[in-house]
Amino acid sequence: MRGERQRERLKVVRQRLKKEKISCLVVTKPANVTYTTGFSGGDSWAVITGRAAYLLTDSRYIEQARGQCRLCRIIERRGPMAEAAAKLIGKLKSVQTAAMEKSASLDTFEALKKNVKCRLKSAAGVVESCRRIKDSDEISAIGTAGRIAAEGLKRMRRRLKPGVSENELAGVLDFEIRKLGGRNCFETIVAFGSNASRPHHEPAARRLKKNDCILIDFGVRYKSYCCDLTRCFCLGRPNALYKKAYEAVVKAQAAAIKMVKAGVEIDKVDAAAREVIAGYGLPVYGHGTGHGLGLEVHELPVVSKNIDGALAAGEVITIEPGVYIPGKLGVRIEDDFLVTKSGCRVLSGIAK
Amino acid sequence: MRGERQRERLKVVRQRLKKEKISCLVVTKPANVTYTTGFSGGDSWAVITGRAAYLLTDSRYIEQARGQCRLCRIIERRGPMAEAAAKLIGKLKSVQTAAMEKSASLDTFEALKKNVKCRLKSAAGVVESCRRIKDSDEISAIGTAGRIAAEGLKRMRRRLKPGVSENELAGVLDFEIRKLGGRNCFETIVAFGSNASRPHHEPAARRLKKNDCILIDFGVRYKSYCCDLTRCFCLGRPNALYKKAYEAVVKAQAAAIKMVKAGVEIDKVDAAAREVIAGYGLPVYGHGTGHGLGLEVHELPVVSKNIDGALAAGEVITIEPGVYIPGKLGVRIEDDFLVTKSGCRVLSGIAK
Repeated sequence: MRGERQRERLKVVRQRLKKEKISCLVVTKPANVTYTTGFSGGDSWAVITGRAAYLLTDSRYIEQARGQCRLCRIIERRGPMAEAAAKLIGKLKSVQTAAMEKSASLDTFEALKKNVKCRLKSAAGVVESCRRIKDSDEISAIGTAGRIAAEGLKRMRRRLKPGVSENELAGVLDFEIRKLGGRNCFETIVAFGSNASRPHHEPAARRLKKNDCILIDFGVRYKSYCCDLTRCFCLGRPNALYKKAYEAVVKAQAAAIKMVKAGVEIDKVDAAAREVIAGYGLPVYGHGTGHGLGLEVHELPVVSKNIDGALAAGEVITIEPGVYIPGKLGVRIEDDFLVTKSGCRVLSGIAK
Repeated sequence: MRGERQRERLKVVRQRLKKEKISCLVVTKPANVTYTTGFSGGDSWAVITGRAAYLLTDSRYIEQARGQCRLCRIIERRGPMAEAAAKLIGKLKSVQTAAMEKSASLDTFEALKKNVKCRLKSAAGVVESCRRIKDSDEISAIGTAGRIAAEGLKRMRRRLKPGVSENELAGVLDFEIRKLGGRNCFETIVAFGSNASRPHHEPAARRLKKNDCILIDFGVRYKSYCCDLTRCFCLGRPNALYKKAYEAVVKAQAAAIKMVKAGVEIDKVDAAAREVIAGYGLPVYGHGTGHGLGLEVHELPVVSKNIDGALAAGEVITIEPGVYIPGKLGVRIEDDFLVTKSGCRVLSGIAK
C-alpha cells in the first residue's frame, strides 16, 4: 500500500480511537491487521496508539512484513503472541488502558490479560466501522476482482457440456481465476439442478445433464480485496417453474438496486427485493438480501431485515435475492455495488 | 459419518464434559461442530448435553444438515444465533450452567450471555482434546488426502519447465487435487529460488529459471480431513549451499521421525531435528518442528520447544524442519505421521 494511503487510514482509525477514548488498540483480526498496516500475511497482530503503529509477527513473515509495512514498526516475536504484545504495551508509557478487539477469542483475551500490566478492556468494531467506507484504491481493487471474475466465468462456460461434474467445473473456474491473477476468496459453489436449492451446496460428483440448470456462487480476491458473484443459467431449456423463479429473482434484484442510494434505510432495500418474490407467490429466501464486502467477503453493512441505519456513499454491498424450492430448484443472482450519492455503480458487470 | 462412529465420539466428549463438570457445552468452532455432529457446513453451532446433541443452523444449510447429522436434533434458527442458542438452553431443564468454547470471540460470548438465563462460563479445549486421538475413519481420510496429494504433485511436475510462474504452478496443483476428488485445505505455497526463504511466501508472477530450486507447501482436504506436505526440488543442478541445506533438512527430519513413538516427550522430538541443523552450522528454523492435523490443518499436539507432555498412540502429526537463508534459499520437508506404540507410520508417502 502507498504510504499516503496508509497514513490516511491510520488517521481515520485514530479519530475513532479518540472518540471511543482508546489510547491503545490491539488488532487481532487479519483483515483489520491488513487495513491498519498493509501486511497481508497471517498470524500477526497490530498495536495502534495515537503516535505509532506496530506489527507483531514471527520469523516466517518477517521478510514480507518489511516489504509491505512502510509506516509500522515491525517486531519479530519469538515466544507466544500474548507475551510479545504485553511486553510491547508495557513499554508504551502513555498507555494506562489497552483495548483488544472483540472479535478476538476468549482465550486470546485471557492470555493477554494475564501478561499485560495495564488494564485491558475490549472494543467492538473500531476498525470494521472505518472499513465501511472504501477509498479509491479499495474500489479499484474490488472492480478488478469483478473483472477477473467476469472473464474467468466466460472462459469456464466454454467447458459447459453434458457429463462435466460440479467439482470439475468449480476446479476449471478456480484455475481460470488464478491464471488471470486472482484467487478464490471462498470455496466456489457449483450446484446442478435441484442441488441449487441448498444456498451453500458443496460441489460434488453430480454430472451435468441436458436441460439442467446451474448455480455458480464464487468470489475473487485481488490485492487482498474481494468480489462476490452468483450466476444461474441452463444448459438447454429451463422448465416453466424455473423461468418464473428466474424472472422473479431478476426483478427482485432490480427492485433492490433501484432503492440503493446514500441515505436510504437499509431495511427498505431488503424489503424491496422480498416483496417482488412474495408477489410472484414464491417462497421468500431465508438469508439476507446482501452484505458489505472488501477485505472480507462479509463485512459491514449487513443488508437484511431489522437492520437499523442507512447506506452511505463509498460503501460496497452485494444484492443477492434468491428462490429455493427443495428437490426442485434454486436461483440466486448476486452483484456488487458501490453506493453513491445519487444511486449506485455496479462493480461486477457480467451479462446474466 | 456412520451412526456408531458418531455415538463413540459423543461418548468421549461426554466423558470429558463430566470430568470438567460441564452439563451443557456450546460448540462454536467449525471443526468441533463437525466432530460432534457430522455437519460439514458453516455458520452453525452445536449444543451438547449429557443426553442430547443439537445442531443450530439456518435455512441455507437445513437440507445438508438433515443428510449429515443422524444423531442430532436439528434446529433451524431464523434470528441471531445467540438468541436461538439461548432459547434452546432455556428449555433444557437440567442445565444450570452452560459453557461456551474459549475459542469463541468475546462478542459472541457476550451476545449469548446477554440472552441466556442460566450462568455462562467458558471452557478451553474440551472437544480439541478429544480430537487429538484419531479413530480409524479419521486416519483413513487423512491417508486418502495424502495419496491425493502425492498423485496431484506427480501430475503437476509434468508442467515443471522454465518460464512457468509460481502462480500458474500453484493453480495447476490445485486443479489436479480437485480433479482427484480433494480440495486445498490452505493456500498452496509455491516459491522459486530465494523466495523460498519466506516460509509462508505467497505465489506470485516470478517465472521459473533453469537451475532454480522450488519449494511447494500444500494440503489436501478429503472428507473434512487434512494432510499437509512440503517438498523441495530443483530444475537442473542445485548449488553447493543448497545441497548442504537439503541434506541437513533430510537428516533433521529423519532424526525427529526416529524419535516419534507413543510416550516420547514432545520437546525431545523437536530438539532432535534442531540439533542436526545446528550441527551443519546452518541457521535453525524459527517455526515449530510440527503440529497435529485432522479436521484442522493445525491442531493438537504442538510439536515445538518448551512443550510439556508426550506423544500418544493415535495422534497424527507433521514433522517439518527447514533451513532459511534470506536472499539465498529456503528448504523445508514436511510429512504426516500416525504415532503408534512402537514408532510411527507415514501417511504422506511421496518420494522426495
